[in-house]
Amino acid sequence: MTSKKNIGIVKPKIFESLIPLRLQSGKILKEYDLIYETYGTLNKDKGNAVLVCHALTGNHHLAGRHSSKDKYPGWWDNLIGPNKPLDTNKFFVIGINNLGGSDGSSGPKSTNKKTKKSWGADFPVVTVEDWVNSHEALITSLNIPKLAGVIGGSLGGMQVIQWALKFPKKINHAIVIAAAPNLTAQNISFNEVARQSIITDPDFNKGNYYEKNTQPKRGLRIARMLGHITYLSDDVMESKFGRKLKNKNYKYDFKTEFEIESYLNYQGDKFAKEFDANTYIRMTKALDYYDPANGSKRNLSKVFKKIKSKFLVISFTSDWRFSPDRSKEIVKALLDNNIDVKYAEITATSGHDAFLMEEPRYHAILKSYFNKML
Amino acid sequence: MTSKKNIGIVKPKIFESLIPLRLQSGKILKEYDLIYETYGTLNKDKGNAVLVCHALTGNHHLAGRHSSKDKYPGWWDNLIGPNKPLDTNKFFVIGINNLGGSDGSSGPKSTNKKTKKSWGADFPVVTVEDWVNSHEALITSLNIPKLAGVIGGSLGGMQVIQWALKFPKKINHAIVIAAAPNLTAQNISFNEVARQSIITDPDFNKGNYYEKNTQPKRGLRIARMLGHITYLSDDVMESKFGRKLKNKNYKYDFKTEFEIESYLNYQGDKFAKEFDANTYIRMTKALDYYDPANGSKRNLSKVFKKIKSKFLVISFTSDWRFSPDRSKEIVKALLDNNIDVKYAEITATSGHDAFLMEEPRYHAILKSYFNKML
Repeated sequence: MTSKKNIGIVKPKIFESLIPLRLQSGKILKEYDLIYETYGTLNKDKGNAVLVCHALTGNHHLAGRHSSKDKYPGWWDNLIGPNKPLDTNKFFVIGINNLGGSDGSSGPKSTNKKTKKSWGADFPVVTVEDWVNSHEALITSLNIPKLAGVIGGSLGGMQVIQWALKFPKKINHAIVIAAAPNLTAQNISFNEVARQSIITDPDFNKGNYYEKNTQPKRGLRIARMLGHITYLSDDVMESKFGRKLKNKNYKYDFKTEFEIESYLNYQGDKFAKEFDANTYIRMTKALDYYDPANGSKRNLSKVFKKIKSKFLVISFTSDWRFSPDRSKEIVKALLDNNIDVKYAEITATSGHDAFLMEEPRYHAILKSYFNKML
Repeated sequence: MTSKKNIGIVKPKIFESLIPLRLQSGKILKEYDLIYETYGTLNKDKGNAVLVCHALTGNHHLAGRHSSKDKYPGWWDNLIGPNKPLDTNKFFVIGINNLGGSDGSSGPKSTNKKTKKSWGADFPVVTVEDWVNSHEALITSLNIPKLAGVIGGSLGGMQVIQWALKFPKKINHAIVIAAAPNLTAQNISFNEVARQSIITDPDFNKGNYYEKNTQPKRGLRIARMLGHITYLSDDVMESKFGRKLKNKNYKYDFKTEFEIESYLNYQGDKFAKEFDANTYIRMTKALDYYDPANGSKRNLSKVFKKIKSKFLVISFTSDWRFSPDRSKEIVKALLDNNIDVKYAEITATSGHDAFLMEEPRYHAILKSYFNKML
């Protein structure tokens, strides 16, 4: 067994599309940029490309570092690299920052070429469908006729489903992790509370805060703190933090008494410094909207009829954001259509976040699946 | 079977205590008021008194109306009244607004007799222990030597446990509903997000907003929306709301698209108009702090040794805020001490909120328990 290596220094590229994109809302993006990164080498037959779709707060920077000074590598560095489960000695891996993002693709923070100002609130609402359409434009520009695989967790998993539905002949394998075919009322509720906390922050200024040089940090930190609770399982919170106090005794004030409070406040503060509020609310909207079967489980089987790719579906036992039952809905609709699907329910304590972690059984399954893919 | 009747018009009373109350924080409330209501008649032997402890947003107004124009009766009107499960033909029922509340008892909104201004941020943090000590002062002032029962749901259930622990000889029956012996890290997390949304609202003004004639409504509505998600079960949200849209089609904007969003926003707005933010953050702190066994399940059995009262413990299957497992911790610690305890796990879809509802099996159990109490 050859030992895992890191990717090293990577450089993002820009795909500038001059072909208008008609969005699901009916609006049209006349031109748009997608920032992306690639790892590994595209084979001569162009058959080894794997697209990685990102979740709520992810981006195109999957693995490696942009400079040797970078403190952290890309967000899925534990999965992607030489001899890693998604082995870049073998695969050509592509990461894209989705439209509406704030890391270099066209989005609220980027410049509207027409007005020469930031898009701000004028950047349209984008959907999973829009993203996949723009992904396809980039993949086509790279002269890749068919992807070996598309992989994604959470909101990324929804994009994988959409790839298989919209471009059934352009994808061989779909890998859907910790995802669901749509959001439940509870999922939507958590998103709406997060959005309301951002939108009602006086510094949000209806989304046009870049010129004022403010950020709705108060709202964004509340949104992140709340999100964080839903990413972790009750059990992992209990075993990591429980009722551990910051000080020896209660202080009886409104500062943080418990370690879990400090942790959440720290995560909220950190996120509010780094992430763009307009992007955050758009990503949650994309989650809410995605619903290929229009809310009907029976419809899902009908809709899945057009799928041609093979599937690997993975869920985590302690994930209460997208529980294993939601993954099973996907598996059921695939089986109803005699589609080749493998399903793994991983025993994990870390909740929804497990999909980002280097859990041995989880990574072993992915490694084995990718090994057999080509 | 005699038919249920309503209480009719009730009038709150004020208990003015001039005896200083030493709080758990070490601070001293030199004098304080408790607003309370009573229903039914105290027997000559004073043996038929039942104290009802309220939860996060409750108060002393349990049943009946303050005037014939009142739109709604007290918050537990479905339980308390002539021929209702807690029958006021038989029992003398007492409701108290807890210290720190904003409905007439001493709290942040009330006047600090020393400064002649609202207490505001200066009103101390109060705990379940402090509340029970103040309850006992009121009960003593009513010349009641021993309560037939103390009943409460959620945070109210914690007060019942504390009554049984602190005044074991002054309580015959303890009825603990949808409660827990302490909060988990996840419970504390939700409370902290709610508090942070209030505290970081610019209108909070460090808790001194009464004089400025503002209310941190933005923060309070977020806190309530979030709270609401945790009071309902995933299932009941799904069956009541699911992915039902407000309009026929998506609008692709940041207004509410789904009925569940409208519902939560409505609940948040309504609450922010009615409830006091300083009270809200204090009530959540009392929840966080209560932990008679200092976080140890084994300790709970030791601590419960001093209990003399009988117990009825009730939980609801779909309650994920205080799940049946948490109630079973209480039952286990009681059984370890050979304390007479009855336990009922009610199949209910409505989550934590079930304890406020007129669920037939739930009310039948309470009715039967109260019938045998005297």
